[in-house]
Amino acid sequence: MPGSTFGELFRVTNFGESHGPAIGCVIDGCPPGLALSEADIQPELDRRRPGTSRHVTQRNEPDAVEILSGVYEGRTTGTPICLLIRNTDQRSKDYGNILDTFRPGHADYTYWRKYGLRDPRGGGRSSARLTAPTVAAAAVARKWLFERHGTTFTGWMSQLGEMPVAFEDAAHIPHNPFFAANVSQIAEMEAYMDALRKAGDSCGARIEVVAQNVPVGLGEPLYDKLDADIAYAMMGINAVKGVEIGDGFGVVAQRGSLHGDELSPEGFRANRAGGVLGGISTGQDLRVSIAIKPTSSIRTPKASIDRALQPTTVETFGRHDPCVGIRATPIAEAMLALVLMDHVLRHRAQNADVVLPVPAIPGAA
Amino acid sequence: MPGSTFGELFRVTNFGESHGPAIGCVIDGCPPGLALSEADIQPELDRRRPGTSRHVTQRNEPDAVEILSGVYEGRTTGTPICLLIRNTDQRSKDYGNILDTFRPGHADYTYWRKYGLRDPRGGGRSSARLTAPTVAAAAVARKWLFERHGTTFTGWMSQLGEMPVAFEDAAHIPHNPFFAANVSQIAEMEAYMDALRKAGDSCGARIEVVAQNVPVGLGEPLYDKLDADIAYAMMGINAVKGVEIGDGFGVVAQRGSLHGDELSPEGFRANRAGGVLGGISTGQDLRVSIAIKPTSSIRTPKASIDRALQPTTVETFGRHDPCVGIRATPIAEAMLALVLMDHVLRHRAQNADVVLPVPAIPGAA
Amino acid sequence: MPGSTFGELFRVTNFGESHGPAIGCVIDGCPPGLALSEADIQPELDRRRPGTSRHVTQRNEPDAVEILSGVYEGRTTGTPICLLIRNTDQRSKDYGNILDTFRPGHADYTYWRKYGLRDPRGGGRSSARLTAPTVAAAAVARKWLFERHGTTFTGWMSQLGEMPVAFEDAAHIPHNPFFAANVSQIAEMEAYMDALRKAGDSCGARIEVVAQNVPVGLGEPLYDKLDADIAYAMMGINAVKGVEIGDGFGVVAQRGSLHGDELSPEGFRANRAGGVLGGISTGQDLRVSIAIKPTSSIRTPKASIDRALQPTTVETFGRHDPCVGIRATPIAEAMLALVLMDHVLRHRAQNADVVLPVPAIPGAA
Amino acid sequence: MPGSTFGELFRVTNFGESHGPAIGCVIDGCPPGLALSEADIQPELDRRRPGTSRHVTQRNEPDAVEILSGVYEGRTTGTPICLLIRNTDQRSKDYGNILDTFRPGHADYTYWRKYGLRDPRGGGRSSARLTAPTVAAAAVARKWLFERHGTTFTGWMSQLGEMPVAFEDAAHIPHNPFFAANVSQIAEMEAYMDALRKAGDSCGARIEVVAQNVPVGLGEPLYDKLDADIAYAMMGINAVKGVEIGDGFGVVAQRGSLHGDELSPEGFRANRAGGVLGGISTGQDLRVSIAIKPTSSIRTPKASIDRALQPTTVETFGRHDPCVGIRATPIAEAMLALVLMDHVLRHRAQNADVVLPVPAIPGAA
Repeated sequence: MPGSTFGELFRVTNFGESHGPAIGCVIDGCPPGLALSEADIQPELDRRRPGTSRHVTQRNEPDAVEILSGVYEGRTTGTPICLLIRNTDQRSKDYGNILDTFRPGHADYTYWRKYGLRDPRGGGRSSARLTAPTVAAAAVARKWLFERHGTTFTGWMSQLGEMPVAFEDAAHIPHNPFFAANVSQIAEMEAYMDALRKAGDSCGARIEVVAQNVPVGLGEPLYDKLDADIAYAMMGINAVKGVEIGDGFGVVAQRGSLHGDELSPEGFRANRAGGVLGGISTGQDLRVSIAIKPTSSIRTPKASIDRALQPTTVETFGRHDPCVGIRATPIAEAMLALVLMDHVLRHRAQNADVVLPVPAIPGAA
Repeated sequence: MPGSTFGELFRVTNFGESHGPAIGCVIDGCPPGLALSEADIQPELDRRRPGTSRHVTQRNEPDAVEILSGVYEGRTTGTPICLLIRNTDQRSKDYGNILDTFRPGHADYTYWRKYGLRDPRGGGRSSARLTAPTVAAAAVARKWLFERHGTTFTGWMSQLGEMPVAFEDAAHIPHNPFFAANVSQIAEMEAYMDALRKAGDSCGARIEVVAQNVPVGLGEPLYDKLDADIAYAMMGINAVKGVEIGDGFGVVAQRGSLHGDELSPEGFRANRAGGVLGGISTGQDLRVSIAIKPTSSIRTPKASIDRALQPTTVETFGRHDPCVGIRATPIAEAMLALVLMDHVLRHRAQNADVVLPVPAIPGAA
Repeated sequence: MPGSTFGELFRVTNFGESHGPAIGCVIDGCPPGLALSEADIQPELDRRRPGTSRHVTQRNEPDAVEILSGVYEGRTTGTPICLLIRNTDQRSKDYGNILDTFRPGHADYTYWRKYGLRDPRGGGRSSARLTAPTVAAAAVARKWLFERHGTTFTGWMSQLGEMPVAFEDAAHIPHNPFFAANVSQIAEMEAYMDALRKAGDSCGARIEVVAQNVPVGLGEPLYDKLDADIAYAMMGINAVKGVEIGDGFGVVAQRGSLHGDELSPEGFRANRAGGVLGGISTGQDLRVSIAIKPTSSIRTPKASIDRALQPTTVETFGRHDPCVGIRATPIAEAMLALVLMDHVLRHRAQNADVVLPVPAIPGAA
Repeated sequence: MPGSTFGELFRVTNFGESHGPAIGCVIDGCPPGLALSEADIQPELDRRRPGTSRHVTQRNEPDAVEILSGVYEGRTTGTPICLLIRNTDQRSKDYGNILDTFRPGHADYTYWRKYGLRDPRGGGRSSARLTAPTVAAAAVARKWLFERHGTTFTGWMSQLGEMPVAFEDAAHIPHNPFFAANVSQIAEMEAYMDALRKAGDSCGARIEVVAQNVPVGLGEPLYDKLDADIAYAMMGINAVKGVEIGDGFGVVAQRGSLHGDELSPEGFRANRAGGVLGGISTGQDLRVSIAIKPTSSIRTPKASIDRALQPTTVETFGRHDPCVGIRATPIAEAMLALVLMDHVLRHRAQNADVVLPVPAIPGAA
């Protein structure tokens, strides 16, 4: 199957190119009866939007979403919801040089080899701009999950380049351009970014995402485990190179006597597993961490080749984020929301009749 | 969709429980004409099999695979291939205590909550034994990929608990029980394991897998990127908590000036990306790394609850690997092979007609 | 996707060849908690089995089904259910002549062109024997549908060759070899078949299937309408060349003033639609009719070609049904059951929360 | 899975409601490099468009299609193609009475029960207007199939109510409002329609579709046979109640000595099978026939109920086709094209390497 659809039962089909007429998605499978308007979606798009601080790309367009179908008198009807975002600020000239050359670290070479041709304007289909429809679709999922299960999603930056960013308080996240749960290091982060920009370079980042009030029982082993699908969703975000659930790579050096989270009638006593056991949610918080590589478009010249495979040099002068990780937080939240939404529907398809004689134990965060 | 099928076009449907009559899988979509017999599959199963050293579980069964369909006169016919492995050494008594109690770190609680009932014998469906059909199916994929594209898969252990295991030479891998590409640290690893076992404890591991001679152009953005599907496959292996592609979490502290792999007419000059750009294979080696948690079944007692949610204590006396990561190497290779096999078929469905005027550049390992 | 899986959420993956070691299927997605043993499945297999009268093929094997997974202590666990049927009576010699020649009306030529090679023994994968795993899987679906919704499936032959077979009483169906709801024409049907056999010829048949107590609301427009999926299921049965829902081709000459079934508080006043409107079940009986072509294997010689495309003549001496339609009734019932089962799960995935202020109106048969 | 996506590898996701802001579709999986512009799609939409004669609904809108993505410099890029059609002539008032009442023969009741609410404007999602995106997507498939394989699709009306319409010459089809391959009966058909309209009634129709130059080997048994998927596609068209392949229901009374199409080195000697054997295309013409029910919206009053399940009467005064079958021909062609397109891609995914020592035999029409 072609790969532009996310999910099995809450299916999001993404379309568009960075500098084509429009981008968007079609959501098929949304439960009917959900109150929904553009006002429910736009705030999530605005969180992810470029141009909101001097640390992110200055592309300036409103990313206004339009609901084309699937909603009648303010409620979802159960039929496909098409969300459309017109591209308005295309500045194609910035990208003229990438028509013939392959930018190191970018998808130029691989798209060209795969399809035999490609839309080079703004990275075409490989642009991070295509995360916007994903974020829009996830806003619908988040609304339903919150109303139905109280589920929430919170992401933050925990590392900027080599600088760890302490988690001080989730309340800080909306109040700085980095999605940092932090107030004391913001000035230092700003200075770090300014230095990078001056140097014509870029850096990576680490993002954490947590889902709270997760229904127990989500995940479809043997292969479609909840954590497997989360890893798929996260690794599919542009520039992500690593994914961890719970203690992640930290488990390598742990002992079994420490690692396995004990259970008690009051709930799990720890959450090293990150909310998943055997590929199925425990009802605890889902804890996910991702690594984002440094922006590939930098001012520093790099060696490359052109479409005739002749050597050339690439340096980028257009608007670009020196750290693409800065805008990744709402995207990572969106991906996690889409995974959970799909698995809630998948779970109840098979297991809607399951009745247990005892309640679920409370989870430990 | 229920989750026991892996892949879209080379589809592997896995069935069975650890202590039921049999385990196995059905492969649908295998290209016709591949020479195939049990002798092509059995060696891969033997590599993954328990009981091969004192460091892995002593369950002793031959895991003999039988081809029930899809092969005629020694060649695949293009119809479904059913691979059957009878369970012979079931020793159900070892597991009696897990009928009513939920073992910390295991899937007992989550399976019970999801399905309302579960087969507790040997962990039932959540047992690592169910990786055997996956490995068997992957043996078919590996044979086809090697014959058609020369693709090979090599995995090794790079860390055992807190002990890094140096890569000395891939030739060592088959000659020690740890799948270590190493000869000088083997004695130390043996001692490490003996001490763990004596302590009634367990440890984690880190495994590397590399695919060589990977066709360029594999991967189906926007969502079904090659690295996304690799992450899904790897995180779906029992006990895996982290997945990295290329430099993985190391990218967080890298600079863009370093990270983006430069291209030259002679090929890529580095492979920090791990063989994937924009979710599509570059033709370079695919480099994947995974973190495996310590075995949850240990002799050390841990607090838990029973099905009435009453407190209890769990300690495990049966046969168990003190490091489940030891046997994970052939499984990780198998998963990577299944991902590539599926993507080769997906790629050619859409792009079989693509002709480029210049050859692919050679990859850098 | 390869095509040996039926259904999206109650997924049946079929494997095997007519004269290979075994045939069978894997059901993924069965709800947990259903009481199930071989005794629930065997009777449906026995209804479809050859050798039960002189009017059907004399292949004589017990078709004994074995449950290999997915059931623990007599209940489904929600994990894949593998059903295995060993082939025992293979008599390969009967089929030797079809290795090199293409039998008119059979799949020999098309399989060979599609796959480049084929298993010719007994028709290999194209044999009607492969409906046995479908029937076995459907037995599981039927049990669940009956317990959960009271749904039943009844099929009968309504035409044998040019002879219409009156519907007298459904109670007659199990008591004659034709699945005729009839007692007065049975002797005539027997004579008809004997004459056909003597003539070395074969005839077609028409089968009706009705499902009763069908939940309202099943079907997933725009494309996966309930009637669309029924047509897919029925046309996929060997030898079927036509499918009708409700009044079928009779609607061409009907007037709208007659056709549209009126509604009243007591229910629909007619059922010309056959239980589906807009691709969604109305809660009335589902009414389906299918046309089955005459058996292609006949004693009468026919012109054909061999694998070198040279002319040859084919006549069949082995055991064959002069009317394959005779055994099609339980298969058609099975297909309809699988469609409904899948759609019940699909419906509740999206619409489990829908609550209407008024009850469904009763259906009219 | 929700049901608004057609196909596995050439995937068409349909969205929109009859009187919402827009309708359209996203095609994922289109091979790259196909020359494509709106001018390739618009003519097919125009053929299906209402308002083209006095015999079809007078809704008057241009149905102008816009390509939003997936095409760069006039060629498909292999990424999703979004096709958008804005709704312009909505006249919602015509449909006011169907908000609360369920029109006999329509999907009003079933949509309401399935989703708990529905968009009643113009039938909402169940309107035949939603076939427009299908036709648009199929125009892309038809172009690719013709360029790559020379495949063509021709449909015509063979029966209007009780009046058989002779096939005189395919050249007549574009020159009358009925898609009749006929010139001598057109006046009679016009009179027939005028009488129906005067009577406030409607009638059914039978449509034939033929595909020529069909690649041999298409179809994915065991379940996704080519004819099974054709039946699914055809029965999914609004108002279709019956589907036949080849001789269809005529086979019931045929003898095997007649039915099985003989083969010769010059090709098949007949085509009673309709171009499919064992679910796989033979390379002959594909022959499909469908039955379309009479329009449900008629002026004649019919009994029904409202949302409180109270009795009421329905009569329709808005614009409506007295025979919806008149406009069904391009839709049926479109569906057949989508099925073939998908199966070409599916076939080559698995079988791209198959090489036969001899050419395919020519087909008999």
